Amino acid sequence: MNYCSNCGKSLSFSTPPGDDRPRYLCDSCGTIHYQNPLMVVGCIPEVDGKILLCRRSIEPCAGKWTLPAGYLENGETVSAGALRETYEEACARVEIIAPYAIYNISHVSQIYLMFRARLLDNDFKPGSESKEVRLFSEEEIPWGEIAFTVITKTLRDYFRDRAQGKFSFHIGDVLPNV
Amino acid sequence: MNYCSNCGKSLSFSTPPGDDRPRYLCDSCGTIHYQNPLMVVGCIPEVDGKILLCRRSIEPCAGKWTLPAGYLENGETVSAGALRETYEEACARVEIIAPYAIYNISHVSQIYLMFRARLLDNDFKPGSESKEVRLFSEEEIPWGEIAFTVITKTLRDYFRDRAQGKFSFHIGDVLPNV
Repeated sequence: MNYCSNCGKSLSFSTPPGDDRPRYLCDSCGTIHYQNPLMVVGCIPEVDGKILLCRRSIEPCAGKWTLPAGYLENGETVSAGALRETYEEACARVEIIAPYAIYNISHVSQIYLMFRARLLDNDFKPGSESKEVRLFSEEEIPWGEIAFTVITKTLRDYFRDRAQGKFSFHIGDVLPNV
Repeated sequence: MNYCSNCGKSLSFSTPPGDDRPRYLCDSCGTIHYQNPLMVVGCIPEVDGKILLCRRSIEPCAGKWTLPAGYLENGETVSAGALRETYEEACARVEIIAPYAIYNISHVSQIYLMFRARLLDNDFKPGSESKEVRLFSEEEIPWGEIAFTVITKTLRDYFRDRAQGKFSFHIGDVLPNV
């Protein structure tokens, strides 16, 4: 961030009066440019005990498998965003059952909200960001080829809950790979 | 949004190739300036059956009562943000019990996440954005002087659950006042 999106002048980076951390500030028009975490919303689509995964056709992690999820858009509810991403990535129609988990990925300032969902029919196919979409039983999950740590965590929590016959709402942290 | 924060040139507003909605675009350096919802995180601090509310000293809704809550910051977990806001607004130390509710306020692109919390001591006092902080029993809640519709909804959901002896995780929508 170099220039003020309001007036186009150069920005400085310092702590505004009364604030406790540095922000991008415009000394010309006075605008403070706050930067805040992004929400990612997605689904765990299940039917007949199997989970729908998408193989990514784009970077990052092209070729790896993921649950349908993406950035929440302005004006959207979290449920609507999760349904939209599921349709965009897998052309899949689902019904949301319940919110399942929030995962903090603080080192990249992302908050994931994942929903349990029921796949409504088998008319799914790859969307523009996927090269393949298919159903996996728990035994078939390609654990070594999952795109993101948060997706591995989501699936592990989900299968653990499912085995115990009870889904509880989770909140957890995803740390950087070291 | 008028100017590119990367290169300082004027922005256009149109739908990028492969996208489905208009964005602020820089035709000079190619940056797409996405705009996404903000997360607000906060607590419902309870002790001895009473709830801690803050009377706002700043606009909007100066003089009205609210639960401690505010924008999640980059690099922060949702729980850490809720604890920070509770300390900033009420100088109150709490222990988080569980996530309680997500409320979509889509018309202003805000997502609220509220936590149930236990007030740890009585050393609370107004922070810089509050002019008064006090505990209210359910009967004492100043329903006509609550700052935001989402806070009224949070409190009503909370007291309803509490009366039934069971707190479930909520997801709901807050619509514009008409």
